[in-house]
Amino acid sequence: MQTKHLVFISAFILLFSSILAAQSSVVQKYDSVAVHIAKEALGSNNSYTMLEDLCTKVGNRISGSPQAAKAVQWAMKRMQDLGFENVHLEPVMVPHWVRGPVEEAYLLLPSGQREKLKITTLGGSIATPAEGITAEIVEVKSFDELRALGDKAKGKIVFFNRPMDRTQFQTFAAYGGAVDQRSIGAIMTAKAGGVAALVRSMTTRIDDSPHTGGMAYDDSVKKVPSAAISTRGAEYLSQLLAQGKTVRIQLKLSAQTLPDVESANVVGELRGTEKPNEVIVMGGHLDSWDIGAGAHDDGAGCIQSIEALRILKKLGLKPKRTIRAVMFMNEENGLRGGIGYAAKDRPGEEHIAAIESDEGGFSPRGFAINDTVTYTKVAPWAPLLHSFGADRITLGGGAADISPLAQKGVPMIALSVDVHRYFDMHHSENDNLSAVNERELALGAAAMAILTYVMAQEGL
Amino acid sequence: MQTKHLVFISAFILLFSSILAAQSSVVQKYDSVAVHIAKEALGSNNSYTMLEDLCTKVGNRISGSPQAAKAVQWAMKRMQDLGFENVHLEPVMVPHWVRGPVEEAYLLLPSGQREKLKITTLGGSIATPAEGITAEIVEVKSFDELRALGDKAKGKIVFFNRPMDRTQFQTFAAYGGAVDQRSIGAIMTAKAGGVAALVRSMTTRIDDSPHTGGMAYDDSVKKVPSAAISTRGAEYLSQLLAQGKTVRIQLKLSAQTLPDVESANVVGELRGTEKPNEVIVMGGHLDSWDIGAGAHDDGAGCIQSIEALRILKKLGLKPKRTIRAVMFMNEENGLRGGIGYAAKDRPGEEHIAAIESDEGGFSPRGFAINDTVTYTKVAPWAPLLHSFGADRITLGGGAADISPLAQKGVPMIALSVDVHRYFDMHHSENDNLSAVNERELALGAAAMAILTYVMAQEGL
Repeated sequence: MQTKHLVFISAFILLFSSILAAQSSVVQKYDSVAVHIAKEALGSNNSYTMLEDLCTKVGNRISGSPQAAKAVQWAMKRMQDLGFENVHLEPVMVPHWVRGPVEEAYLLLPSGQREKLKITTLGGSIATPAEGITAEIVEVKSFDELRALGDKAKGKIVFFNRPMDRTQFQTFAAYGGAVDQRSIGAIMTAKAGGVAALVRSMTTRIDDSPHTGGMAYDDSVKKVPSAAISTRGAEYLSQLLAQGKTVRIQLKLSAQTLPDVESANVVGELRGTEKPNEVIVMGGHLDSWDIGAGAHDDGAGCIQSIEALRILKKLGLKPKRTIRAVMFMNEENGLRGGIGYAAKDRPGEEHIAAIESDEGGFSPRGFAINDTVTYTKVAPWAPLLHSFGADRITLGGGAADISPLAQKGVPMIALSVDVHRYFDMHHSENDNLSAVNERELALGAAAMAILTYVMAQEGL
Repeated sequence: MQTKHLVFISAFILLFSSILAAQSSVVQKYDSVAVHIAKEALGSNNSYTMLEDLCTKVGNRISGSPQAAKAVQWAMKRMQDLGFENVHLEPVMVPHWVRGPVEEAYLLLPSGQREKLKITTLGGSIATPAEGITAEIVEVKSFDELRALGDKAKGKIVFFNRPMDRTQFQTFAAYGGAVDQRSIGAIMTAKAGGVAALVRSMTTRIDDSPHTGGMAYDDSVKKVPSAAISTRGAEYLSQLLAQGKTVRIQLKLSAQTLPDVESANVVGELRGTEKPNEVIVMGGHLDSWDIGAGAHDDGAGCIQSIEALRILKKLGLKPKRTIRAVMFMNEENGLRGGIGYAAKDRPGEEHIAAIESDEGGFSPRGFAINDTVTYTKVAPWAPLLHSFGADRITLGGGAADISPLAQKGVPMIALSVDVHRYFDMHHSENDNLSAVNERELALGAAAMAILTYVMAQEGL
């Protein structure tokens, strides 16, 4: 009995020791490489210089726009100039929604005067008639509240005013808890007989910048126009309503959806020296919304993917497996790039992992991995990311563009960053270069370079 | 032999288990309290509201200034209004340096025209003569280089241009590697026979904002005026010199040091219910430099200390030991508040720990603890800070105001934050409210509230 126990305990200790040994051997093997990578990222400041170039020469770049076409050329040329291999475009058809010249909302005062509200058209919305829609607003915090209104919503502009829950520790969780108002507010409005949807902007900050974002229609009901109002504007309207006032608004939007346009994912690689057909995809999305500069969302992720490869090449690190940078097109309003990439037939190739940076160019915290096997393999590498605080490897999570690959069984990994500031800028005019810190951006690139390189050498 | 092994292994497992159990019991005990604290910090947004009040009603507040006096009253009233106990001032004499109305530097071009440079007087500097100092500049990257110049520095303005090393992972390490130029550049200049010191600003960013900061004189040599130039200006001067040009500058500064002024540390408490004489000090410094608003440095730390107590009180948490918030005066150019606090006789009291937040109001990462015993006790509490990513407890480090307490043997703990952005703002006009994110600031306060509360209950 004692002997049996002893054998069991010894076996356990042996197993545990061997896991630790395996871990420490990988960490020891790449420890100095990781430091060199991070120092090159910080020292060169190339991420920021590249992002500055994208933001100033191209600017924002919504799918189907001339700027998006320019961004595709920009990314391809960047990767060619850096000497990446197999640089090419993979065409995809993308939606082509345009905001048009008019987006206005006025609060109509009893005096007959008008007060301008800070709004932005939601991506995908139809236009109002040229003379606008003039109607009373009705405030709701949930779809249940809207349904409970019954006939009272008929002919009204439905004002969705449930704030993002600022007590959430993860801003993405707060976003997830409020974004249904933006996504399907227009559908719910139409079902309730409303004439337009006005949605509180998706940010925890109270300010004057409206935040755009994607919204959907449902063919079974009428399409109604949909716009976001700044959080300060939303608070103001809500106060007026709380005082028992009737609040009438005139809304004019000129948006329209044009026929689909050909665009492309932009691809470049460092080919694997030993197992080139085992591919690690690393990317971000090249499209953005059409306000601000798309600096954090997701200029940052694209630049970091290019920069990660640049650093490996610069340091003479030759990956055994192929590392492929992909700038996906159309994450914001269609995911056509992500879907197209995953659907494409690639004979002989096996994707061993897909990694995306799409939470902004903030201080990296680690990686979120969707499957247990990959997590178990990668988590022990965390000490390689410890020196700059990016060593939190967590199980669960993902990113939009690589989710179609994940559906095909490819392990999905998202760069985790410090996201507290993200929704101050997300989808708004604030998402500019000045909101990006060069060190934080660079270290995100470093984290991606380290992870993909170790993965390329060690396999999964 | 086998039995002996078994006993040893069992003992080891027992010991290990008991450590884990002790850890998990503290964590279990306070887990839900920690969540409540963090949610109150985020949900109320009180940190930001308070900081906004300080930045807009008081503004920057250099020691000895009317604004510093106003800040003292502001902090005292805040703590009184919140119902803290034993709110009082502890007077200290502080230096009174004033910038005066003039600080100008012009590059004198061969054409006879002048080009304005972005400079700021360093704190403590003397003035130039009213007509300014006009001299050729000589660039050095180190004191060794300066010494090697011999007579060539005589009559010159010495231009210290060693950048902060941007490849450092910790910005404070990069600062530490460059700040000697600012601190003792004027002394070294005088020793070399130079007439003034012009120092590259302490930031890794290349921009137009000069950064001030403390500098010292040495009675054994002449006092020469000293100013900081923006990093972009420094790069420009360096380029001109690299082209072999003679660079002449006219420097006019009007600064002076007036007689010491009475000021005060501001103190408020939650008295311990069981061991009131065991005191945990938690603080920041109330003074700032006289440009910008001192939002991060160190409005943030003061506000977080008040907010931490407010949250505990709001949630009805009664600490067994006393938690004392101290807004120290004069960290920036004298440390008189920190020294005075530690020197004061406090019969019957024992300080069990001193905690400071003085790295800016950024996303909290954890705590840095200077002594092993405290570290060993506190490190297992880290899971309480995990939910918002502040669970990195490290050994080593500290903060200026509480360092005199540490010299008397009080364990010293610094709030660690994500400091990549800090030196973009530090001691410059950029250190304004707009550079502070409300969630990051609030979570710093939450981390301090959690740590001090658990410490007050569990002891050290």
